[in-house]
Amino acid sequence: MQFRQELQSLSRDFHLPFKLFTFYFPLFTFYLVHMTKLGILLSGRGSNFEAIADNIAAGRLDATIAAVISNRAEAPGIESARRRGLHALIIPSKGRTREEHDRAMAGALHEAQVDWVVLAGYMRLLSPWFIQQFPNRILNIHPSLLPAFPGLEVQKQAIEFGAKVSGCTVHFVDEHLDHGPIIVQRAVPILETDDEHTLAERILEQEHQAYTEALRIVIGGRFEIAGRRVVIRQL
Amino acid sequence: MQFRQELQSLSRDFHLPFKLFTFYFPLFTFYLVHMTKLGILLSGRGSNFEAIADNIAAGRLDATIAAVISNRAEAPGIESARRRGLHALIIPSKGRTREEHDRAMAGALHEAQVDWVVLAGYMRLLSPWFIQQFPNRILNIHPSLLPAFPGLEVQKQAIEFGAKVSGCTVHFVDEHLDHGPIIVQRAVPILETDDEHTLAERILEQEHQAYTEALRIVIGGRFEIAGRRVVIRQL
Repeated sequence: MQFRQELQSLSRDFHLPFKLFTFYFPLFTFYLVHMTKLGILLSGRGSNFEAIADNIAAGRLDATIAAVISNRAEAPGIESARRRGLHALIIPSKGRTREEHDRAMAGALHEAQVDWVVLAGYMRLLSPWFIQQFPNRILNIHPSLLPAFPGLEVQKQAIEFGAKVSGCTVHFVDEHLDHGPIIVQRAVPILETDDEHTLAERILEQEHQAYTEALRIVIGGRFEIAGRRVVIRQL
Repeated sequence: MQFRQELQSLSRDFHLPFKLFTFYFPLFTFYLVHMTKLGILLSGRGSNFEAIADNIAAGRLDATIAAVISNRAEAPGIESARRRGLHALIIPSKGRTREEHDRAMAGALHEAQVDWVVLAGYMRLLSPWFIQQFPNRILNIHPSLLPAFPGLEVQKQAIEFGAKVSGCTVHFVDEHLDHGPIIVQRAVPILETDDEHTLAERILEQEHQAYTEALRIVIGGRFEIAGRRVVIRQL
């Protein structure tokens, strides 16, 4: 009894990323700890996926990666997932309608019992149907301070606009492109000497930290969504 | 000769904010040092004007304020300009067309021989005619990281959008609202506890520094405009 109460109060006080289920039997009490499961979608290198996997391995994020799905067979991120011994799947988008493809992906994610869907350079629009399967449970990262510079060629847009500050945004995915409620933003200065590649690199460094920061917030349940605002309870 | 050359090389090497004109007469050589003159336009408190005036007084900005013009008689910024012994003018906009009013202002600014027109909470659109009188010589400050949140009620827009980072932008004024080439941007985090007033206050602190930083750049001639980009030569 006391052990259970202590665990629960620990979980509540420190917003630990597990839920505690307790089963009572006549003679024994079983404790089942639920570790949060992430499902990663990617289309390319998936450097944000690698940063998340590294942070989990280093104990900086309490979660497991239950599935890594690519829509492209040649995505280097899949090779990296396999090297890490993760459940890596190729579900080709080519030759399928968006909804067929999204149904196949949702099936695989549900089968892997993922709690959160993490987009890490997944270069395809998700159907409204898919998004409704995981309401406020899909996260994306975008290499600008939204609402500035949505869409593609983001760093090129920022440099051509002459912005002096850009950054990155981790947000919930809703039915509109680069639009859902924002969990974390980090600013990155644009230097005189920057081209789109050097800027992309410096923003990527911040992305790798920002994504784990955002995942820690949502996994710990330390937030409420009010309108478009994600109100975060500080630890 | 040597004195002149030294002054000119000093001016070139350190981007000093004066131009040196030399006149030769049979027996004497005259040196005329041109100190940069600012013309301030405001409609209210003009806290950015006050910060600029304070920075000039403290030796942090080499310029003089040659005219402070308000379109509203009751603007507290005019009172403040008079207390500082500055040339303060009220040119009412009420009852005049935009062009009539802009012509009166341009006349006063030309008469005061201003080099740069500095908008400090001037709450009226300038006519294309006025802007053409001072091509790339009018500066404005906006309390967001443009292109995000242009227009009015800027901090309310940022908070309702759920942004986690905002800031301020000093830019050249062109014919479009909140649009010209950007000289300086500074990021400001949006806190969980912020409302539009507390956010406005924290952004204003950065504005007061950013405007002087931008004026130092343009007065020193340390920039080139390429497309929308203001390329700044570092000191």
